Amino acid sequence: MSKSNYKKIILDEKKIPKKWYNIQADLPTPLHPPLNPATNKPAGPEDLAAIFPMNLIEQEVSRERWIDIPEEVLEKYLIWRPSPLYRADALERYLKTPARIYYKNEGVSPACSHKPNTAVAQAYYNKVAGVKRLTTETGAGQWGSALSYACNLFGLECKVYMVRISYDQKPYRKMLMKVWGADCVASPSNDTNFGRSYLKQHPDTPGSLGIAISEAIEDCVTSKDTKYSLGSVLNHVLMHQTIIGLETQEQLKIAEDKADVVIGCVGGGSNFAGMALPFIKDKIYGDKVNVIGVEPTACPTLTRGPFAYDFGDTAATTPLLPMHTLGHDFVPAPIHAGGLRYHGVAPIISRVLLDKLMEARSVDQVTAYKAGVTFARTEGFVPAPETNHAIAIAIEEAIKAREEGKEKTIVMCWSGNGMLDLTGYEKYFSGKLEEYTMSDEEIQKSLASLKGYPKP
Amino acid sequence: MSKSNYKKIILDEKKIPKKWYNIQADLPTPLHPPLNPATNKPAGPEDLAAIFPMNLIEQEVSRERWIDIPEEVLEKYLIWRPSPLYRADALERYLKTPARIYYKNEGVSPACSHKPNTAVAQAYYNKVAGVKRLTTETGAGQWGSALSYACNLFGLECKVYMVRISYDQKPYRKMLMKVWGADCVASPSNDTNFGRSYLKQHPDTPGSLGIAISEAIEDCVTSKDTKYSLGSVLNHVLMHQTIIGLETQEQLKIAEDKADVVIGCVGGGSNFAGMALPFIKDKIYGDKVNVIGVEPTACPTLTRGPFAYDFGDTAATTPLLPMHTLGHDFVPAPIHAGGLRYHGVAPIISRVLLDKLMEARSVDQVTAYKAGVTFARTEGFVPAPETNHAIAIAIEEAIKAREEGKEKTIVMCWSGNGMLDLTGYEKYFSGKLEEYTMSDEEIQKSLASLKGYPKP
Repeated sequence: MSKSNYKKIILDEKKIPKKWYNIQADLPTPLHPPLNPATNKPAGPEDLAAIFPMNLIEQEVSRERWIDIPEEVLEKYLIWRPSPLYRADALERYLKTPARIYYKNEGVSPACSHKPNTAVAQAYYNKVAGVKRLTTETGAGQWGSALSYACNLFGLECKVYMVRISYDQKPYRKMLMKVWGADCVASPSNDTNFGRSYLKQHPDTPGSLGIAISEAIEDCVTSKDTKYSLGSVLNHVLMHQTIIGLETQEQLKIAEDKADVVIGCVGGGSNFAGMALPFIKDKIYGDKVNVIGVEPTACPTLTRGPFAYDFGDTAATTPLLPMHTLGHDFVPAPIHAGGLRYHGVAPIISRVLLDKLMEARSVDQVTAYKAGVTFARTEGFVPAPETNHAIAIAIEEAIKAREEGKEKTIVMCWSGNGMLDLTGYEKYFSGKLEEYTMSDEEIQKSLASLKGYPKP
Repeated sequence: MSKSNYKKIILDEKKIPKKWYNIQADLPTPLHPPLNPATNKPAGPEDLAAIFPMNLIEQEVSRERWIDIPEEVLEKYLIWRPSPLYRADALERYLKTPARIYYKNEGVSPACSHKPNTAVAQAYYNKVAGVKRLTTETGAGQWGSALSYACNLFGLECKVYMVRISYDQKPYRKMLMKVWGADCVASPSNDTNFGRSYLKQHPDTPGSLGIAISEAIEDCVTSKDTKYSLGSVLNHVLMHQTIIGLETQEQLKIAEDKADVVIGCVGGGSNFAGMALPFIKDKIYGDKVNVIGVEPTACPTLTRGPFAYDFGDTAATTPLLPMHTLGHDFVPAPIHAGGLRYHGVAPIISRVLLDKLMEARSVDQVTAYKAGVTFARTEGFVPAPETNHAIAIAIEEAIKAREEGKEKTIVMCWSGNGMLDLTGYEKYFSGKLEEYTMSDEEIQKSLASLKGYPKP
């Protein structure tokens, strides 16, 4: 139970935060601008206008500290928000730790993850801008299902290009998209020029996120009333997620507690940012909270990737973004945490790391699954493979507190539940789960694609 | 929004009901006793003692109106309870109905359904009675996963015999059981005499619930410190579920509303009873609420089955139970709502129907899925196939209210989410879902197995 003796700390619907937090107002060092790769000059709004509506482009570059959440978005948020903040007291007892562990359960959304926080906002702003249809790509399907859900809420059409190997191996998520009325096709598909030509050359390709992005963007720029939507990395996407951390801060007040350690897993950076940025704001203004981002050893962008200008996509079509990256050619090992398999990290997170406002750690997937099983067998809920990375470090911190004999408050973002990702657990139990830690040679090789671009 | 203008009506943890409601105290006509099939005499506690602990047998026959929920069970309930009561305002707007529709979201439990309400209680009482291990059977896997979850919470071993065809076709639920530490085998298995001999004769059998029950009971009676656990039908199981309706009544008070119609889907009867019995209590004492149980046309026990003494299992090993039944040999068509494929209905529900304290309706699965898709596309959450049956009638009642121009409050039990049952939706969209309505000849044929047993 929390200090206030509740298992779940519930924030009243009427007290849901009414604004998102935009850390660009408080960053000690401003972000480097994205660059137009043709000119190497800062990319302007016009470089993005073909694929995003102007209201979202404005959010992308805004330096306003607080951005009002529109009434229409708040109304949809109430379907699952405020999400409960749980005290993980059973896990604490199991670990015999004096630490208090809290987890923010983002698995309660209809799509079972934090992704709808931005999907709903993006669908709304596109709707307002007169857009009738959104395209996107998806790997394992978390983002595709979240955007399908959000488009359905606002009456937009939605087309999802899903990496073929996931489309074939993870049929549940594509069914979920269909339930919400979206059109989901395996990528490469016959629906775009790029897809058709790629298929002709490689009829047996398993597909890749890079190919899927290229198809989604081609579809966007060649279709009427259509824009493109991205589920992570960009500034406005991270900002939409800050509702997670803002709610958590209110809930900790109710629990009469204060975070000493804040933990989230990091892929593109959206769930981590959502939890962490409001706490990093406090840190900028003098608070001592320790904020930890956790990535897989199979994709160690924050812990081993340089800060460089790189493309957001594999096909090298986006503006150059200033970020910690392993190079846009990098194809991460096939770990089950599909949401953490991204070659770069959001510019905001990269900046925050450079300015020592957070700490980065990496965890191999066997350790992550072990932590997930410990969680499921103590707290009950089965975590997503991505979430397991955050849990592993929360457990590590709780054990450290025990060894040091220190009381401590640990808060983690429980980014989603694992109901549609149970196969990784099966492999874990059968001993067939691989560890995947990158060697220095592999890292050096993967960084080759960064050569020849400007340095930030 | 509800009358009190909330999307979700949340009951404070401190106000969770502390007692279960036992309708045996209030039934206008007492239940017929179960009979020992060897003697045709009322079965006593000793007939059940080989497979159930005495504390649960006492609950089975108790006439106390209120039974204290043990502290240890309440503590576990708080992991997901009180569950939210949602106002389905988006569905209402879509239907243009003056009715207010509420749904009680039992999908928020770690196992995604209402089943843990009794699983946790049963695991606790077995633990207290010194039992170290529970056996059970499961069809699609909802009950098996709920009991695995509950046994893990109380440190009991758990062995689940899962019908082979489901074991092969629905791999996610068996993985879930493993995450919670249970041992799940395909039935018939090589772990019991009955299983081995059945396999020898029918090596390619898809298995059946009847075979799985026989294996679970054999394992129970031949193993040390082991008891058997059932997920529906029995009086104590239904009583544990009444926490659903009791919470709902408190939440309706918060919403300043009152139920005119209460709806739940019916298989063995546990989720329906959980929601309905506290409202039926009010009806017994003069309230006008209309309580509707909804079953599939493929398994119309309440609407077309006679009230008779019949076995609870296909292998004819249990005491004879007084219930609406289609005969213990009846094998329902393979509808996706696996939880509604049971040849009989709980004696308590059968009694309540005979005494006209409820109404029974049936819905074919295509209509049910259509309702489920309407729900998912308005309210967001994707319902389980069982739940879709309740939704279909809620929609029917809401449309009736519109046609009659009447305000009305409709409350339904949303028994679980459909995240692990998405294949049925896929079939629905591809037009391959079959309707399955039984003919009179089929009913007559299936009733043959009732001949030769005493009449209630």
